Amino acid sequence: MSGVVVSINAARETGAKKASIDPLMQLVKSDMEKVNTLILAKAGSNVEMIPEVARHLIDSGGKRLRPMLTIAAAHMCGYDGQHHVTLAASVEFMHTATLLHDDVVDESDLRRGKASARMVWGNQASVLVGDFLLGQAFRMMVEAGSMHALDVLSTAATVIAEGEVLQLATAQNLETTEDEYMAVVKAKTAALFSAAAEVGPILAGSSKNQLSAFRAYGTNLGLAFQLIDDALDYGGTASKLGKNVGDDFREGKVTLPVLLCYRRGDEAEREFWRESIEQGKTDDVRLEKAMELMTKHNALGDTIERARHYCELAGDALATFDDSDHKQALIEVLEFCLMRAV
Amino acid sequence: MSGVVVSINAARETGAKKASIDPLMQLVKSDMEKVNTLILAKAGSNVEMIPEVARHLIDSGGKRLRPMLTIAAAHMCGYDGQHHVTLAASVEFMHTATLLHDDVVDESDLRRGKASARMVWGNQASVLVGDFLLGQAFRMMVEAGSMHALDVLSTAATVIAEGEVLQLATAQNLETTEDEYMAVVKAKTAALFSAAAEVGPILAGSSKNQLSAFRAYGTNLGLAFQLIDDALDYGGTASKLGKNVGDDFREGKVTLPVLLCYRRGDEAEREFWRESIEQGKTDDVRLEKAMELMTKHNALGDTIERARHYCELAGDALATFDDSDHKQALIEVLEFCLMRAV
Repeated sequence: MSGVVVSINAARETGAKKASIDPLMQLVKSDMEKVNTLILAKAGSNVEMIPEVARHLIDSGGKRLRPMLTIAAAHMCGYDGQHHVTLAASVEFMHTATLLHDDVVDESDLRRGKASARMVWGNQASVLVGDFLLGQAFRMMVEAGSMHALDVLSTAATVIAEGEVLQLATAQNLETTEDEYMAVVKAKTAALFSAAAEVGPILAGSSKNQLSAFRAYGTNLGLAFQLIDDALDYGGTASKLGKNVGDDFREGKVTLPVLLCYRRGDEAEREFWRESIEQGKTDDVRLEKAMELMTKHNALGDTIERARHYCELAGDALATFDDSDHKQALIEVLEFCLMRAV
Repeated sequence: MSGVVVSINAARETGAKKASIDPLMQLVKSDMEKVNTLILAKAGSNVEMIPEVARHLIDSGGKRLRPMLTIAAAHMCGYDGQHHVTLAASVEFMHTATLLHDDVVDESDLRRGKASARMVWGNQASVLVGDFLLGQAFRMMVEAGSMHALDVLSTAATVIAEGEVLQLATAQNLETTEDEYMAVVKAKTAALFSAAAEVGPILAGSSKNQLSAFRAYGTNLGLAFQLIDDALDYGGTASKLGKNVGDDFREGKVTLPVLLCYRRGDEAEREFWRESIEQGKTDDVRLEKAMELMTKHNALGDTIERARHYCELAGDALATFDDSDHKQALIEVLEFCLMRAV
């Protein structure tokens, strides 16, 4: 694993060859075309509103990282059937259903830069089409025919919902510890990454130890992915973005950069965060102040360092596998994930 | 089946021995205690809010008719394992999840005479705890270990969501035909009754024809059950109630009694219904007028007659099975269902 760490650090420090998601995308390309076809087919319904709402999200340009993990991990473990395509589509449907329900829970107006489904069709359609997609996800798991994979994915569905409820319970609480916050992230984000990475190897009949390795890879990648997302919401370290700066701030979300600033700040600063997060005072002047405090306390840099820690765990989890293109691509995704923010 | 028809009519016309759900309850009593224990265990979570919200509904005194069907049908087909208890709990969780999401979709303030979960804990908790219960339902199906039962129940989950979306699309449309309305009821209500009745016999290894029979029994009981509910909302034929008269009217719900009145009324009456259902003018004076129109057009009586039709189909579906206590109890439930409203 040390080679990988050097590579991450080298890229960061010298601007050497930038890590990319392209090798992974190339390796899974033909299977992902099948996944995409299946996704469109299974989002179909005679009830007109369902494909409309579903496609609004499906077409909105998510990277489909989770199903790519399923496909790549299945191949890496030597699987040569077709059920990994079905499970990959199922994983993406679980994710899409979660996004639809999240928008209702968060009262979000935007999702991936477009009006959220609930703004176009209402909360009602978002809740119900989410339920439909979840039902379809389970039907696809049944089609894939692996009771073990069904167990892993249905458990993930439960854990994700638990994580979301836990997040509600800790929402706007600036006294949340980093451990508590990471427990939420582990449940609401990392659980699906973990399941996505594990179910391909399950189909391949991999050993118990190999399954543990893929679970660890997925979990830690998921943790890092969420932390990088948290950092990007305040511009990362270099203000290069895939999303609008300040959305989390305006929504009063308690994320790791905020928690670090709050703990490290003096009483006046903590009062600033309370007014912002708890009382919703989040205009642009205050956003600028928030970003200054992030710099002062190196909150974004340290959030990315935490993410780097989890990426290293993810890389080490795969260390005992023989070298292969797929392994290399899955390792490079870890670097790519970090590079988004620096 | 003709014996049953006579029995239903006799009870109605002569006030003879009233059909009861008691024989069914007696037969499934010891298994239902296990189901209830399992329900409480599986509603548990370290995330405090989850058991609170779940128990709010679980303790609110639903009859648990659906899981009773699963238990009784399994026994009737000679099943002697324990997985029917797991699937029965799973069926009840699917139902509870639907209720939680329905309250958000309908913006309901009350459920079974208590404040709805969304009024106490908010829409957010209702959506997410519903998702949690759905996840737990699938985990229990996996525990039960029957891929066939998983297929039936996951398909039901999808169909229910489709039915709810279809209902949204037809909401407040007084031109909805009876066939269109029944298509909604078949999906949103009867699909789960059908699955609940089928999965016990699946565990018992029943024949294809026997499974079809239980599907038909469940579907038609579900259709009748919903129509009787529709009639009860306007007081049935005798104003003996299990729920508040007029809730559907005040919520602008298009149900069969309303559709019959609308079609059978003159233009002035149709205008009254449009103002009530489409424009939401639903004060008590107008509710009284609505009930007068129901009487004038025999809308409640005919809704109950339609329900009777479906109950007869349900009874006939079981006709080829040997007589048994369980069969008799399942037949008597059909009569009981009708008797609620007359």
